Amino acid sequence: MHTTSPLSALRQWLESNHLDGMIVPRADAWQSEYCAPYDEKLAWLTGFDGSAGLALVLKDKTLLFVDGRYQVQARAQVNLDEVEIHHLHNEPLAGWLQNNVAAGTRIGFEALLMTNADYTLLTATPCELVPLNLSPFDPLWTDRPAAPAGLIREMPVDISGESSTDKRQRVAAVLAEYDADYLAVTLPDNIAWLLNVRGSDIPCSPVPLSFALLSRDGNVEWFVNDNKLGTLPDTMRNALKLAPQDMFIERCQQLARGKRVLVDADSAPVALRFAIEPQGEIIWQTDPITLMKASKNPVELAGYRECHHQDGAAWVNFLAWLSREVPQRVAAGQPLTELEVQAQQLRFREQQPGFIEQSFATISASSSNAAMCHYHSSEASNKTLGHDHFYLNDSGGQYHNGTTDATRTLAWGKVDPQQRLHYTAVLRGFLSLMTLQFPSGSQGHQLDAFARRPLWEMGLDYDHGTGHGVGHQLLIHENPHRFAKKVNPWPLVAGNIMTIEPGYYQAESHGIRIENQVEIVECRPGFCKFASLTLIPIDLSQVELSLLNEQEKQWLDEYHLRVRETLSPLVESDARPWLFEATAPIHVNR
Amino acid sequence: MHTTSPLSALRQWLESNHLDGMIVPRADAWQSEYCAPYDEKLAWLTGFDGSAGLALVLKDKTLLFVDGRYQVQARAQVNLDEVEIHHLHNEPLAGWLQNNVAAGTRIGFEALLMTNADYTLLTATPCELVPLNLSPFDPLWTDRPAAPAGLIREMPVDISGESSTDKRQRVAAVLAEYDADYLAVTLPDNIAWLLNVRGSDIPCSPVPLSFALLSRDGNVEWFVNDNKLGTLPDTMRNALKLAPQDMFIERCQQLARGKRVLVDADSAPVALRFAIEPQGEIIWQTDPITLMKASKNPVELAGYRECHHQDGAAWVNFLAWLSREVPQRVAAGQPLTELEVQAQQLRFREQQPGFIEQSFATISASSSNAAMCHYHSSEASNKTLGHDHFYLNDSGGQYHNGTTDATRTLAWGKVDPQQRLHYTAVLRGFLSLMTLQFPSGSQGHQLDAFARRPLWEMGLDYDHGTGHGVGHQLLIHENPHRFAKKVNPWPLVAGNIMTIEPGYYQAESHGIRIENQVEIVECRPGFCKFASLTLIPIDLSQVELSLLNEQEKQWLDEYHLRVRETLSPLVESDARPWLFEATAPIHVNR
Repeated sequence: MHTTSPLSALRQWLESNHLDGMIVPRADAWQSEYCAPYDEKLAWLTGFDGSAGLALVLKDKTLLFVDGRYQVQARAQVNLDEVEIHHLHNEPLAGWLQNNVAAGTRIGFEALLMTNADYTLLTATPCELVPLNLSPFDPLWTDRPAAPAGLIREMPVDISGESSTDKRQRVAAVLAEYDADYLAVTLPDNIAWLLNVRGSDIPCSPVPLSFALLSRDGNVEWFVNDNKLGTLPDTMRNALKLAPQDMFIERCQQLARGKRVLVDADSAPVALRFAIEPQGEIIWQTDPITLMKASKNPVELAGYRECHHQDGAAWVNFLAWLSREVPQRVAAGQPLTELEVQAQQLRFREQQPGFIEQSFATISASSSNAAMCHYHSSEASNKTLGHDHFYLNDSGGQYHNGTTDATRTLAWGKVDPQQRLHYTAVLRGFLSLMTLQFPSGSQGHQLDAFARRPLWEMGLDYDHGTGHGVGHQLLIHENPHRFAKKVNPWPLVAGNIMTIEPGYYQAESHGIRIENQVEIVECRPGFCKFASLTLIPIDLSQVELSLLNEQEKQWLDEYHLRVRETLSPLVESDARPWLFEATAPIHVNR
Repeated sequence: MHTTSPLSALRQWLESNHLDGMIVPRADAWQSEYCAPYDEKLAWLTGFDGSAGLALVLKDKTLLFVDGRYQVQARAQVNLDEVEIHHLHNEPLAGWLQNNVAAGTRIGFEALLMTNADYTLLTATPCELVPLNLSPFDPLWTDRPAAPAGLIREMPVDISGESSTDKRQRVAAVLAEYDADYLAVTLPDNIAWLLNVRGSDIPCSPVPLSFALLSRDGNVEWFVNDNKLGTLPDTMRNALKLAPQDMFIERCQQLARGKRVLVDADSAPVALRFAIEPQGEIIWQTDPITLMKASKNPVELAGYRECHHQDGAAWVNFLAWLSREVPQRVAAGQPLTELEVQAQQLRFREQQPGFIEQSFATISASSSNAAMCHYHSSEASNKTLGHDHFYLNDSGGQYHNGTTDATRTLAWGKVDPQQRLHYTAVLRGFLSLMTLQFPSGSQGHQLDAFARRPLWEMGLDYDHGTGHGVGHQLLIHENPHRFAKKVNPWPLVAGNIMTIEPGYYQAESHGIRIENQVEIVECRPGFCKFASLTLIPIDLSQVELSLLNEQEKQWLDEYHLRVRETLSPLVESDARPWLFEATAPIHVNR
């Protein structure tokens, strides 16, 4: 079918549309972390399938901008005769255009795929930015996957804990504070929370791709394609005004005259600005739902706790199986592989009541593969599990009443002494936050360093955040809270759900991460602590116990006792001896 | 002389100048933390002499805006029949004007006393802001103190470590990066650093009040009154173009046409904007000298280390004297008072070679007086020192080669068990930072919480920052670095000088603070730690030693050994036995 490459085809299209170039980002209209195949335009165009980046296609050359994580992968995936690789942050697109493009150069872009902040940066360059009315991908991408059409289901109020009507009234009250007439809800997880629905457009991320408009009286227009609504009850449909997804921008344009519309400053497409600003006013703010949604209600919290019992049982069944299989398979000369192991782990999860799907693609990484923080196994990379090295597993599930995310790093023999010290330092960083009391309203960047200090003592560190919010059967990385070096201005309060996941990575050698999901609870007036949701034994076989203090040992003993007592009735009978051994107090047998 | 109150006189002046009101801030033209008496207009006008606040004088009423620290003091100092007290942050001036003043109300202000940021806030109100050409204080304040005229001295290059010429070239290179023609240097400590001079306009703050203009070729015009230059050598005068201080704004206006002028965004007076913007362009940035100055050169660092030997000896002489005098005077029924003690401490400092003056007004606070973080003793407040309660001393000196700032909290008998736990927690917070290794370039808000954690464990905290920069014979609170909860974006690197000073305060009961001044040093590639400049024994008699870990005890022992070995040759012979006892290893006699 393709006699020309996608890039050549796009160039011809640009020429016939009187454009000198086009920007093609790795983005959908929601700036999703995980996109539907339908939206992987950049991968189709260039071959690069990383999770961030953008191409600038010009008449005589194509530039691909990717960040530090993807410099190697991009060079392996694209045709370097056609595409020049640039660094997304060190030599950004706006700077390149500033220095290399003549005034008036016409550069096309899709206004649904670009945020207002990114657009504003580009307006400082000499080129003429041309929002496209027609997408070149419609005629050119002939074997394009179908648009996502995942069925939408209701999230019952006995699971969500608050009716959609009540949520809408709470959000509408915030609109009144801003003297705003509408909230343009462009974040799929905020729509799912507001309407008490879940979707199936994208694996692991049960949010329906759609848009919504909430007016100050609490009414909602939902811009969602009808083919996704199959089983949704009439009572729900009748409580909303429904319209096709692609009517959203036009509708915003219609109603904008003289109105004030609150729009999410971080993620909303610049198409909204073009639609609203000529006649109305935009209030650029963080969507107020983002913060509301992060304070989980008692029913949601009960759901998180409950689904962690199921997930913990799946983990224990899996780890007990591993503890039997790894030595046997090594002895038989047929060691387990990362892919075998993750497949078996999924079977254990699927046995659990309430399990829906994985909450993200499992990281099953043995030995040096674990040094890549975002590794995913393939037939080509698939390493085996052995005695003298670490195996890292980062996985989780979407359950009918909540979402899980945990990491364990394990070894079945003895790792070398240096790696043992690294593991001990990561564990101590983890324990430092698990044993912390902090003033309610503290911010993530104030607490992040506690998890790093034991590594800093060794002159080491890790190049990722220490934790993130987790949605309630929503996105695995939920805004707005983060533990990281980077400033995160949002106050941490009781009812927030976070992960705590320090790590250490040595390229081409090993990777270590220990992650629990936690609930923030008030421990005394004005002060909070982290209560573990995750219930999975922590491997102490590789710990230099003499480096732990009494408070840390006590936390581990109390945690393991709780894990044992909670999970013992829920795990397979042949996993129970392993559970007892793995949760024994520290002074026993160590 | 005054038949009418200052407020009535100002009202008459406003009426005859066709103004409806005037804003009178507690500020000089440099937004100094400590002002000359000449600039204490707000105190003259209202009686309120706190370090922050502003008055809005209207035809029918006067409002005084002060922050939380000063709500009580303001009510005690002003005539409440004439003045209404408002909260500076909770009900700020701009908000009040917005809600209470009719459009076009003419409000006068002195453009040298207001920052651009404050002015910008006020422009959103309906009133007409009128910059005054003539100050009402010239005719009205008949008994006004003389304008500061402190003599300026040269800071020799063997103390400053870098010639003014070299400094100017370094700053000029930054101007080139910004494509700026001039830097308007409005911060007195930045001028003092740039020109290698020190002044005597304000006690404890040896910075000459003046202005400077640095051009891109490294030349400087210095706007400073001639009467301050008495002893300055001709070589220095000839290297500069000199002009009277009050020519600065006019000169900026003259040269602004078509020029780009870099102006300090945080502190520069809005008068500069009025002067430059009609014809030139302002680049609002943090004055680049602020960050340069914070990286001390090897000569400055050697000076800091050396003057801490002198200051440490003065402290030891003082503390040994206290250890003799406190029990004797209690036994004699004539206990020492805060004022007696601070006078005696000053005598010990004055005996030290190189001592110039105090670096700030001493805080000498016994018992419940120490619960006020910024307490200063007066005859009315003067408490005595006894056995069963804490005494807090926060003091420092300006020496010819550096500046010191330290706090010790002491008791000579036994404080109650609860206060003992508070003292132990403050000490552990202090030790947590003293034993920290952190990545070079970390920011203050990332490290601040280490000092608070032991208090947080008890549900306690303190409501001030954990540390600040210290100038080199300059300001005691030097920008830009801070350890605090508030975000501080400036990277901490080797060569920065900071204080570390956690505390705990219980109103009407007690106050505790332990403060060392530290130098940031590289301890391994990419990592830094804090090396103590302060050499003063830390009182361990009130510590619950069982709560310290081995690393903390080891730090204390090593520190005390260093204090003993360094100071033993420098202290008075009758102070030496006390020094030996106070610096004994922890396992001895405790």
